[in-house]
Amino acid sequence: MSVLIVGSTALDSIKTPTAENPRLLGGSASHAAVAASFFGPVKLVGVVGDDFPRRYVQLYRRHGIDLEGLQILPGKTFHWSGEYEMNMDNRRTLLTELGVFETFTPTLPKAYQSSPFVLLANIAPSLQAHVLAQMRRPKFIVADTMDLWLNIALKDLLRLLKRVDAFVLNESEAHQLTERSNMLLAARDIHRLGPRYVIIKKGHHGAMLSSPNGLFITPAYPLDKVVDPTGAGDAFVGGMMGYLANTQGSVEANLRRALVYGTVAASFCCEGFGLCRITKVKRADIERRVKELTKLTRF
Amino acid sequence: MSVLIVGSTALDSIKTPTAENPRLLGGSASHAAVAASFFGPVKLVGVVGDDFPRRYVQLYRRHGIDLEGLQILPGKTFHWSGEYEMNMDNRRTLLTELGVFETFTPTLPKAYQSSPFVLLANIAPSLQAHVLAQMRRPKFIVADTMDLWLNIALKDLLRLLKRVDAFVLNESEAHQLTERSNMLLAARDIHRLGPRYVIIKKGHHGAMLSSPNGLFITPAYPLDKVVDPTGAGDAFVGGMMGYLANTQGSVEANLRRALVYGTVAASFCCEGFGLCRITKVKRADIERRVKELTKLTRF
Repeated sequence: MSVLIVGSTALDSIKTPTAENPRLLGGSASHAAVAASFFGPVKLVGVVGDDFPRRYVQLYRRHGIDLEGLQILPGKTFHWSGEYEMNMDNRRTLLTELGVFETFTPTLPKAYQSSPFVLLANIAPSLQAHVLAQMRRPKFIVADTMDLWLNIALKDLLRLLKRVDAFVLNESEAHQLTERSNMLLAARDIHRLGPRYVIIKKGHHGAMLSSPNGLFITPAYPLDKVVDPTGAGDAFVGGMMGYLANTQGSVEANLRRALVYGTVAASFCCEGFGLCRITKVKRADIERRVKELTKLTRF
Repeated sequence: MSVLIVGSTALDSIKTPTAENPRLLGGSASHAAVAASFFGPVKLVGVVGDDFPRRYVQLYRRHGIDLEGLQILPGKTFHWSGEYEMNMDNRRTLLTELGVFETFTPTLPKAYQSSPFVLLANIAPSLQAHVLAQMRRPKFIVADTMDLWLNIALKDLLRLLKRVDAFVLNESEAHQLTERSNMLLAARDIHRLGPRYVIIKKGHHGAMLSSPNGLFITPAYPLDKVVDPTGAGDAFVGGMMGYLANTQGSVEANLRRALVYGTVAASFCCEGFGLCRITKVKRADIERRVKELTKLTRF
C-alpha cells in the first residue's frame, strides 16, 4: 500500500570535520520518502522553488516517488546549512533560508486523499494537521516533530497528538515535552497526550517503542563510520512506514520489525552525505542488515 | 563452580537529590559478590578495618560468600562519599578515605587458588595482577577497571590486559583508552591489547559485547526509578560471572545470556541505596526480569 509523506524538501549544505558538501537534496520528506520507497509506492507532499535542481526531481522519480503533490513555486528552495562537531553528535545551524517554504500550504491531490498510511514528517504541526484534514480515513498516521515546534507551536502539536496513532520523537524532545529524563516515564506521559504508540529515537543507542503490547527496544545498527547523520531520524520513520504499509498483518503485529527496518534505513542514511549512500542501496542490502541486527540482539 | 572476586570492600556514604545514606556496604567486590551469589558459590578477597560493621559480615554470610580471603586489619575501612545530580547520571566524589585499603595486598587462601572463574573487580591493576600470579590455571578471567587507573596506572593495566580473557569497561573509559568515540572501533582496538572478549557498559543504554562470535548488544532493563546507581557496573559483571560459572556449556556459548543476567542484576542494584534492594531479591525475580528483557528485544 502507498505511504503519503508530507514534510520539508530542502537543499542542505553540510560541513563535517573532514568534508563540506553544498546544496545536497535534503529535508525531512526527502529522507523519509527515499527510505520508504524501498518497500512500495510513496506519494510526496512538499514545496520547492524554481531553483530546485532537475537532477533531484530525477532522483525522486528513480525511486518511484509520486510527485503530483510536490509544488514547484517561483522563488528559492528552502536552504539549510549546518556544521557537525568531531563526535558527529553535536551540530550547529549556520544558515536557514526558508524561501518558498515560508508560505507553504500542503494541498493534497485527489489521488493522495485516500492513502492508507500517512507520515507527517517534521514540519509545523499546523501544516501536519492541515494534511490530516484533507485525508479520508487513513489506516495509520505517524507524526514526527522537532524541538523548534515544542518551543514555538506546542499548542498546535498537542492538538495534533490527539489525532495520530504514533508519535516519533528523540530523547531530548521527549525530555523537553514531559520534563522527564526517564524515557519509560516520558513515554507514559506522551501516551496520555493521545498516541497509542510512542517511539523514542536514541540516536546511536537505537530506538524504543512503547505500545499496548509492551515495550520494545532495538539497538542502532552499529556503524564503523558516520559520515553525515543529517536525516537519519527521517530515514528511520520513512523506512518504518514503508515496511508497515507493505507487509501483511496488523500494524500492532508488524511494528517492532518495522522499527528494525527503520533502524537499518537510518544506518544507510548516516553512511553518506545527504542521500548519497542510501540511494545506492538495494532492498537486499536492507534485508542483510536486518538479519545482522537480528543476530546481534539474540541470546 | 565458584567465582573468585577481588576488589574493593568499602563503606559508601551516598547523597542523591532526595535522600542521604551514610556508611552503606559498598565497594566493587561487595556489589559483584552479592550479584554473583545468586548463581553459586563466591570467594571474596578484600580488606576492611576493625570498624567494619558486624552486620555487613553477616550480610556477606547470608549470601553464602566465602570470607576466608577477607582481611580484617586494625584501622579504618575504606570510606567513599559521593553525591548524585538530579539526572542520576553525573556524580561527584565528596570524600575518599582509603584507610586499610591504602596498603592492601590481596593474598589468596590456598582454597581460593584453583577457582575456575576469576573476577578482577575494580581495584588497582597491579593488585589485579598480583591475584592472577597466585592462581592455578583459571578457566576464565575477567577484569573491570575505572578511569582512575587509566590516568595513573595505564602501564600496569596494559600489562594486565594481555593476561585476561575479558575486559569490562564503560563507554567513557573505552573512549579514554582508545581515543575513539565510536565503540565498535574502540572495541576492535581493545581486542588488540589482549582480551578475546570486550564488554562495554553503556549505563542506562545497556551493554555491548565484542567477541570472535561477533557483536551482541543488550538494552538495560528499563526502570521506572533509579534510586542509586552506585555499584551497578559491579553488579553487572558479578551477575555475569555468577551465571557463567554455574551454567553448563562453553563460555563462548553462554556469554550473551550472561550479559543479560548481569544487566538484570544491575537493574536491581539501581533500585535501592547500596545493596538494600538486591539483597532482597530471589533468583526467581532475576529469572522474571530476564524473561521480560527477552520479550522486549524480540521482533
